[in-house]
Amino acid sequence: MNTFNEQVRDIAHLGHVELLTPKPNESAAFFTNILGMQEVAREGQSVFLRGFGNYESYCMKLTESKEPGIGHTAIRTTSPQALERRAAAIDKSGYGIGWSEGDFGHGKSYQFRDPDGHAMELYFETEKYKAPEHLRPILKNQPQKYTGNGVGVRQLDHINYLAQKVEPTSKFLQDHLGMKVSEQIVLDSGEHAGSWLYSGQKSYELVYTVDSTNSRGRLHHLAFLVDTREEILRAADIYIDNDIYIEGGPAKHAIQQTFFLYCYEPGGNRIEVCTGGYFIYAPDAETITWSQAERARGQAWLTPTISTFHTYGTPVVDK
Amino acid sequence: MNTFNEQVRDIAHLGHVELLTPKPNESAAFFTNILGMQEVAREGQSVFLRGFGNYESYCMKLTESKEPGIGHTAIRTTSPQALERRAAAIDKSGYGIGWSEGDFGHGKSYQFRDPDGHAMELYFETEKYKAPEHLRPILKNQPQKYTGNGVGVRQLDHINYLAQKVEPTSKFLQDHLGMKVSEQIVLDSGEHAGSWLYSGQKSYELVYTVDSTNSRGRLHHLAFLVDTREEILRAADIYIDNDIYIEGGPAKHAIQQTFFLYCYEPGGNRIEVCTGGYFIYAPDAETITWSQAERARGQAWLTPTISTFHTYGTPVVDK
Amino acid sequence: MNTFNEQVRDIAHLGHVELLTPKPNESAAFFTNILGMQEVAREGQSVFLRGFGNYESYCMKLTESKEPGIGHTAIRTTSPQALERRAAAIDKSGYGIGWSEGDFGHGKSYQFRDPDGHAMELYFETEKYKAPEHLRPILKNQPQKYTGNGVGVRQLDHINYLAQKVEPTSKFLQDHLGMKVSEQIVLDSGEHAGSWLYSGQKSYELVYTVDSTNSRGRLHHLAFLVDTREEILRAADIYIDNDIYIEGGPAKHAIQQTFFLYCYEPGGNRIEVCTGGYFIYAPDAETITWSQAERARGQAWLTPTISTFHTYGTPVVDK
Amino acid sequence: MNTFNEQVRDIAHLGHVELLTPKPNESAAFFTNILGMQEVAREGQSVFLRGFGNYESYCMKLTESKEPGIGHTAIRTTSPQALERRAAAIDKSGYGIGWSEGDFGHGKSYQFRDPDGHAMELYFETEKYKAPEHLRPILKNQPQKYTGNGVGVRQLDHINYLAQKVEPTSKFLQDHLGMKVSEQIVLDSGEHAGSWLYSGQKSYELVYTVDSTNSRGRLHHLAFLVDTREEILRAADIYIDNDIYIEGGPAKHAIQQTFFLYCYEPGGNRIEVCTGGYFIYAPDAETITWSQAERARGQAWLTPTISTFHTYGTPVVDK
Repeated sequence: MNTFNEQVRDIAHLGHVELLTPKPNESAAFFTNILGMQEVAREGQSVFLRGFGNYESYCMKLTESKEPGIGHTAIRTTSPQALERRAAAIDKSGYGIGWSEGDFGHGKSYQFRDPDGHAMELYFETEKYKAPEHLRPILKNQPQKYTGNGVGVRQLDHINYLAQKVEPTSKFLQDHLGMKVSEQIVLDSGEHAGSWLYSGQKSYELVYTVDSTNSRGRLHHLAFLVDTREEILRAADIYIDNDIYIEGGPAKHAIQQTFFLYCYEPGGNRIEVCTGGYFIYAPDAETITWSQAERARGQAWLTPTISTFHTYGTPVVDK
Repeated sequence: MNTFNEQVRDIAHLGHVELLTPKPNESAAFFTNILGMQEVAREGQSVFLRGFGNYESYCMKLTESKEPGIGHTAIRTTSPQALERRAAAIDKSGYGIGWSEGDFGHGKSYQFRDPDGHAMELYFETEKYKAPEHLRPILKNQPQKYTGNGVGVRQLDHINYLAQKVEPTSKFLQDHLGMKVSEQIVLDSGEHAGSWLYSGQKSYELVYTVDSTNSRGRLHHLAFLVDTREEILRAADIYIDNDIYIEGGPAKHAIQQTFFLYCYEPGGNRIEVCTGGYFIYAPDAETITWSQAERARGQAWLTPTISTFHTYGTPVVDK
Repeated sequence: MNTFNEQVRDIAHLGHVELLTPKPNESAAFFTNILGMQEVAREGQSVFLRGFGNYESYCMKLTESKEPGIGHTAIRTTSPQALERRAAAIDKSGYGIGWSEGDFGHGKSYQFRDPDGHAMELYFETEKYKAPEHLRPILKNQPQKYTGNGVGVRQLDHINYLAQKVEPTSKFLQDHLGMKVSEQIVLDSGEHAGSWLYSGQKSYELVYTVDSTNSRGRLHHLAFLVDTREEILRAADIYIDNDIYIEGGPAKHAIQQTFFLYCYEPGGNRIEVCTGGYFIYAPDAETITWSQAERARGQAWLTPTISTFHTYGTPVVDK
Repeated sequence: MNTFNEQVRDIAHLGHVELLTPKPNESAAFFTNILGMQEVAREGQSVFLRGFGNYESYCMKLTESKEPGIGHTAIRTTSPQALERRAAAIDKSGYGIGWSEGDFGHGKSYQFRDPDGHAMELYFETEKYKAPEHLRPILKNQPQKYTGNGVGVRQLDHINYLAQKVEPTSKFLQDHLGMKVSEQIVLDSGEHAGSWLYSGQKSYELVYTVDSTNSRGRLHHLAFLVDTREEILRAADIYIDNDIYIEGGPAKHAIQQTFFLYCYEPGGNRIEVCTGGYFIYAPDAETITWSQAERARGQAWLTPTISTFHTYGTPVVDK
C-alpha cells in the first residue's frame, strides 16, 4: 500500500475548443438557434459562444475556415504553478510550440501539438462569466439564465479526436498532462482503437479514436452537455424539423454509458449532445478495457450504428 | 344488461377558448415567447394563437379587455346533425342565445350560457390548419413543425371554470350536451365542490370547481398540454428565469392524476401546463367520487397547496 | 355538410389478447418479473395477466402451445346492443363462427376470424377489476397499486398482425366493426403494406402489416403501454441485464409517432413497450397515407431498422 | 497569481454511512424492497447494503439501535499517505479518537468526532465490489446489474447533519480534511445556517444545517442518487402505494439545484432520493453565499416547504 503513487492533479478541465467551418453564418445560426447557445463576442473571423452553464465566458470559438475541423483545444490547469509545471514537461518532450499572450477571455497560454498534430494550449488565468442584465439568472448558483431556446445545451462536454495512432497520442497526454484513461478499446492485434482520458471525477473529456483513413489531426466530434435524456429526445425532434441531419442516436453508448445524439452542423462537423454516463469517485480506479469482440457487440442497447460513424471526420479526406 | 342506455356522442372536443386580458401585449408575448405558441391571425382587439399539435387553425383567442377572465368557450360537435340536435336541446332549456355566423376559422355556431353564466358556443364546420412553408413539419401526421421555442405546448387541454353552484351547472352539460362526469368532489354537506366532464376517451375537458367568493362566471384556469413531465419541469425553469409567477407545482394531482404547473400570465389569468393522467376506455365507466376527507388529503404526493389556489380566479373579485 | 355520415361507435376498445408460447414458465416469468405484470388466475394451460392500469381483470391470456403466435383477440363493444349489431353484421359476412359462453372474466362473446385467419371475439359483459388487499392503490382513480417491479406496464396498448393481404383484411374491420384507419402505407404498386385501425380517440389499437413470407394469421407484435419515454429507456437497461434480446429501439416511429422498444419474449413472440404518439380529436379526421418513398425514409429520427423487423413473425415460418 | 494556494486533495469521497434504526426489519425491507438496494452481508445487529453503482462493496451499514439517527460516517482518502496526513492533523486538533482495525469491506481507519459530535472515520484500503453471478452486469463499466426493483438507487449521494453551530463544525472539516464550501447560508445575524462541503468535482457530499432544537450530533437526512428526475417522480408513486410518508418534493432545491424527494424510512430517519444539480469544474470556484432574505424565497420553484423539514431530525428530541 505504501507504494501507492500520489500525484498532484494539474489539469482542471477542458476549457474551450476552436471549431472551423466553411459556412460561418449557417454554423453560427445552428449553434445559437438550434443548440441554443449565446453569442458572447465576435473577433475577426471568429464568433465566441457559450452554454448557459459555462462558468467561463465561452466554451467554443467558431472560426471561418476553408475546411471544417478543429482549430485548437484549450485546457485549463488547476493553478498557475500547474501551468508552469506542465509547460516545462511538454517543452522537454519536443512537442511544445511556446507561450502565447492569451486570447479573448483567458490569459497567457502554453501552446503545443499532440503527437497526432492536434493543436492544444494550456492556460490558467480566465475571465469568469458575468451575465448581462437580460441573461441574469434567478438562481445565483447558475452563471446565466436558462433561455428555453432550442436544445438549450449547458456546456461543452468533451472532444473526440481521430488519431492515426491512438496509443502513443493518449500516452502523451498521460505522461505530460497527468491524465488518466478510464476506458479503452484494444483490438486483437494489440492496437488501441480508442482511449477515453480524464483528470477529475468526470469520466472523460478528451477522447482519441482511430482514424480509419490513416489521416492525422482530424476531429471525430465535439460534444455538448444537457441535463436529461428527455432533452436529447427533444433535440432529435428539433433537428428533424430544422433539416439537421441525424447520423446516430438517440441511444446509449456501451463505453462510458453516455446517452447520445449525433448530427452534422452546417459546416460539416459532427456534433454530439449528450447526458448521463457516470462519475469516477475511486482514486484508484482501474482502466476498463474493451476487447474487439466486446466492442463488436455494439451500443448498450444493440442499436445499429451507421457506417459513416466509423469513417467520417473533419476535415473530410479521400479515403 | 339489456337496459344499458345507448347514447350517440354529440360532443367531439373542446375547440378553443377566448381569454380576456387587460395587458394584451404582455399576454401575447407570454403565450408566444414563453409557452411557444404561434400567432395565426389578428382581428380587432384579438390575437389567435395555436399549439404545434392543434389540428384546427387555433385554440385560443386572446382578447383585450378591462378585466382578465374568460370570454367564451367553443366546443366542436361530432357532426352537423349533432350540432342541430344540441342547439335544439339547449334552445328548449332556456339557456340558449342563438346562432352566430361563425368567427375566424370556424363556421356557424350556436351560442348559449351555462347556468353559471359562462359564454359557450357549439360549432361543427372548422378550418383545418395548413402550415405555411416555414412551419411545415417533416412528419406528415403532425399539423405543424415543433419549433423548440419556450415551453412548446402541443394544444389546449382543458378549461376549469369557477361556479357558484357546481352540481346544477355540471348537470346542465350532462343533460344538454350529453357529457359525462369522470370524477367529482362531494362534500359532507352533499354540496358538489368539483365536477370533471368528458365526452370521448380523454378523461376531462371541462371542469367546474366551486367559487369560494360566491361569484359567477369566473375562470379558475386554462390548461395546455405538453407530452412529458420533463417538459413541465423545464417549464418551471423557464418561468423563474422569465419572472413568471409559479403558484403551484410541478406536482401530481390526486384527482385525474395529471402532472401540473400553474402560473399567472401577465394579464392575471391562471395558466396550467399539464401532462399525464389517464384515458377512459370503459364505455360504462363509473363516476369516481372523492369525499371531503379524501380531498383534504391533498395532492397525490401530499404536496402542500398555496391558499390562493382555492380563492383566486379571474376576474378578481373582492371577497 | 349535410351529407356528413353519422355513425354510432360500436367498438369500445381492444380488450385482451391470447398469446401462445412454447415456453410457458419462462414466458410467464418474463411478463411478471420483467414487464411487471400481475398474475390474476391460472386455468388449464393458461395464465391470465394484467397491467396496473387495466380496468378489466386482465389484458393477456398466456397459453402454452407448440408454437408461439396469437391465440385470439377479444374486443369489447360499447354496449350489449352494439355487440348484437356487430355479431349480426359479421354473421352475414360469412366470417362468423358463433357465440361462446364467455371465458374467465367476461361474458358471452361472438367469435369470428378476420379474412387473414386471425381468431377474434366481441364481448360486452366484463368483470371490472377489484384489487386484493395487497394491491389496493392509494388513489381511487387507479384500479391497482403501482408495484414498482420491473418495467411496470400500465396496460395492453395494441396488437400488430401480419397479413397476406392488408387491404381487404383492414376493410373487413372497417365494414363490419366500424373501425377507421388513422394511417396507412400504400406502395407504388397500389398494394397496402400497413393499416392502423382505431375506434375512439386512441389513434390505433389493431394494426395489419404485410407478411413478407406470404403466410396468414401470424403475429408481428403485441404492445404494452407505459406512461413515459424514460420508462422505455429504463426498460432497455432492464432487458440487457436480464438477457432479453432487443430487436429495435428505443426510438420514435414516424408512423403514429410512438416511442418504442421491441424485444422477443422467451417464447419467441415480439413484444413492444410503447408510449407517446397522439390522440385523434377530430371527428372527421382524414386517413394519413405514407407512400413507398416516404416509408423508406425510415423511423422519425432515421434510426436504422434491423432487417428481422420486416421478416420475423410468430409462428416462425420457413421463408 | 503566484499567490494561488496549491493544495493536494486528500479526501476522495464519502464512503459509507452507518444508519441507526429501532425497527431493523422494517428498515431493511424499505431499503431493499422500496429503494431497491442489495443486501451484501449481515454481522451482529447490522446489515450492509449497496446501490447498483457503488464501486465499493457497500454504502450503508444499517444497525439496530434504540433510537434512529446516525452511527458513523466513513470517508475514503485519495491515498494511504493522505490517510496518514489527515489522521495526524486531526490527532493534533484534539478531536481524534484513534485507529481501528477496520470493518467489513475496508481496512484500518482513523476515527474521530466532528466538533458537533458526529462520529467519523477515514480509510483508504477498501474492498472493490465483485458481483456474484446473478448480479453480474452486461456492461463491464458498471459494478452490478441494474435490477429494476423499486426505486433503484445508484449509490449513496450525501449526508446532511444537523449541528448546533454550523460554522465551526464546517470549519473543522475545511481545516483538517481540506474540504471546501460550495454554498452556504449566512443569516443577518452573521450566524451560518448551512454549509455544503465538497472535495472533488461533485458539488457537495457532507452538509451541515443548523439544529433548531439546539441539540448536537443529529442527522437531518441521508441521500441516495438516481440518474433521472423521472425516477424521482416514479419513486413518489412507489412511496404512496407502499405507505411511505412523503415529507417534501418532488421539487428542485434552490441551493445546489438538486431535484429531491424526502420521506421517512420506517425507523424514523429522513431519507432523500436526489438527482441533478451541477458539478464544479473551476479549481478556483468561489463559495456562493445565500442571505437570509434569499433563503426565505424558498425552493427553486417556490414550492412550499412543510415546517417539519426545519425541525425534525434523528434521534427525535423534545424541543
